[in-house]
Amino acid sequence: MKLNIALLAGDGIGPEVIAQAVKVCDAIAVKYKHEINWTSALTGACAIDDCGEPYPDSTHEVCLAADAVLFGAIGHPKYDNDPKAKVRPEQGLLKMRQKLGLFANVRPTFTFPSLIDNSPLKRERIEGTDLIILRELTGGIYFGERGRKDDGNTAFDTCTYTRAEIQRLAKLGFELAMTRSKRLCCVDKANVLESSRLWRETVQDMEKDYPEVTVAYEFVDAVAMRLVQWPNSYDVLITENLFGDILTDEASVISGSMGLMPSASKGLHTSLYEPIHGSYPQAAGKDIANPLATVLSAAMMLEDAFGLQAEADAIREVVNKSLADGIVTEDLSGKNKAYGTNAVGDWLAKNI
Amino acid sequence: MKLNIALLAGDGIGPEVIAQAVKVCDAIAVKYKHEINWTSALTGACAIDDCGEPYPDSTHEVCLAADAVLFGAIGHPKYDNDPKAKVRPEQGLLKMRQKLGLFANVRPTFTFPSLIDNSPLKRERIEGTDLIILRELTGGIYFGERGRKDDGNTAFDTCTYTRAEIQRLAKLGFELAMTRSKRLCCVDKANVLESSRLWRETVQDMEKDYPEVTVAYEFVDAVAMRLVQWPNSYDVLITENLFGDILTDEASVISGSMGLMPSASKGLHTSLYEPIHGSYPQAAGKDIANPLATVLSAAMMLEDAFGLQAEADAIREVVNKSLADGIVTEDLSGKNKAYGTNAVGDWLAKNI
Ligand SMILES: CC(C)[C@H](C(=O)O)[C@@H](O)C(=O)O
Ligand SMILES: CC(C)[C@H](C(=O)O)[C@@H](O)C(=O)O
Repeated sequence: MKLNIALLAGDGIGPEVIAQAVKVCDAIAVKYKHEINWTSALTGACAIDDCGEPYPDSTHEVCLAADAVLFGAIGHPKYDNDPKAKVRPEQGLLKMRQKLGLFANVRPTFTFPSLIDNSPLKRERIEGTDLIILRELTGGIYFGERGRKDDGNTAFDTCTYTRAEIQRLAKLGFELAMTRSKRLCCVDKANVLESSRLWRETVQDMEKDYPEVTVAYEFVDAVAMRLVQWPNSYDVLITENLFGDILTDEASVISGSMGLMPSASKGLHTSLYEPIHGSYPQAAGKDIANPLATVLSAAMMLEDAFGLQAEADAIREVVNKSLADGIVTEDLSGKNKAYGTNAVGDWLAKNI
Repeated sequence: MKLNIALLAGDGIGPEVIAQAVKVCDAIAVKYKHEINWTSALTGACAIDDCGEPYPDSTHEVCLAADAVLFGAIGHPKYDNDPKAKVRPEQGLLKMRQKLGLFANVRPTFTFPSLIDNSPLKRERIEGTDLIILRELTGGIYFGERGRKDDGNTAFDTCTYTRAEIQRLAKLGFELAMTRSKRLCCVDKANVLESSRLWRETVQDMEKDYPEVTVAYEFVDAVAMRLVQWPNSYDVLITENLFGDILTDEASVISGSMGLMPSASKGLHTSLYEPIHGSYPQAAGKDIANPLATVLSAAMMLEDAFGLQAEADAIREVVNKSLADGIVTEDLSGKNKAYGTNAVGDWLAKNI
């Protein structure tokens, strides 16, 4: 198979972790006789430095021409804490989501038995956790009208949702639930927000098309609690953009395996795969960043975007082997020897 | 001293836990020679049943005439999962907040050494946690314009904040920080929302008036993570209404002492004190609800609204004694004997 993949390494540790995923995919390509065509493009702070734009048109062209996008991370401290900065790396992210129509962010949270003691939660609370949050990614308050009034002394943001946007996201949720435990949780704030009432109404209407799926409706504040108390009581959750931002991040730390969690953003034109961790600028260039989340994101990409199940499984297997054999970076090595980012990538590629 | 207190017991376990707080306060009044004048009024589902209104004008009059309001909990399952219900108990809550001008919800999260093992978090993560979240309670997306368009197929909600609203809340935060560790965390989503940028700008402008306070600015998604990872790294946090809803609930479960957490809502006309737990309808009428959060809310009321420090401390002391002696309801009794709601209240009153 010929795979055309856009490579957006981004900022901070992005380039280092992406490099390891490329090594691993290239090893897969050799073993399973595929041809991967990688096309790199700039995004984030490095793109601003280059051309003043965090998501340049040239990068968008590269993404559109690709079968899938593998993304690192973006963000740089020089843009933080400056509410008045004109261009910020995050704007590139939002522009990319919108222009590529990346409407559904798929964020699994699961545990690795060998890492369970890294969790801030007690073992009995976190054991068996295997949930997926589907976050709507191109609507809501992120993309509504916003501005100032009264000489800048009043600010407003608008959260808007259409029935079609909700259906598109919920459909993925129902379908995913059908392949798993057939339980779906719709997260909203329907006791306050009109947009949440439209979410609830729309999902309730869709229930008849999926008679086997049991749907629960929970308020976002209640979910924020239950994610900490009984994360293993959830399976598939669907929610709007801002709630998803908060809940996916909360969910990411409970497993203790944040450095290993992959994610996908399903799009109208193409789909994008990225680790959930950030650009971690303090670690950049030090060969200490954990590449496993990016490597597992590449596995997700091979499976989802190309249907290459055996190849994806082979990557997951070698990752499990690296964990079992202690071929890991310092965040996971505990009292044992820590390997560098590159050394972990080399080991994974060699063991494919 | 003469204390005029409005008593809003509400729904579910509300009346039972409120009754215990009344017993304890009455015992305090005897011992410290105060005269408490309790005036009861309906709110929530019971008020809807009575007159079709969850926060009737007559109840509002009672609150306005009082020096402080002691509140139980509201909500009833018959109103849940019905996005189209015309009147809901929660609307009473929002109306009450708005009409009483309850602009600041003060929600502490702390630990009781004897209860620390109830926390879903590991001991080393939760030990020493003592934080307070100040949630703005009468603005933002809760009270902005909302509605439908396109034959009901598009829904919108508006989040609006004025500089004055932010200053009012932030002032409390700075003042509270001055009485504690002098660290303040402003929680927003300034990388996306204009209203958050106004929050950040406004708080940054206020920093010069509190040169001793160190202010950190964090994004709501990052705070949702850190609350689970290192709750004891926080002291005072300030945030807008919706973020506060989610984060205070998340924070409430990490201590393992949810059934003990009090809260205050500071108002323009009067202030309101309530346990943070809900109306827990499944437990209503069974004499099993834990009254300690309500009793501790009464302590907070005596301290904040009436300046009765010794009296508040006396209540906290007897609560600690009940925990130490195991005079507790079934949620805290573990393998030991569980006491009923009433028995706990009687014991506390007797031991004042
Ligand atoms: C950087 C920021 C705009 C972004 C978001 O809020 O969506 C990030 O937090 C994320 O979750 O990908
Ligand atoms: C019941 C609901 C409207 C309310 C809120 O969202 O404010 C509740 O969750 C709370 O936190 O007091």
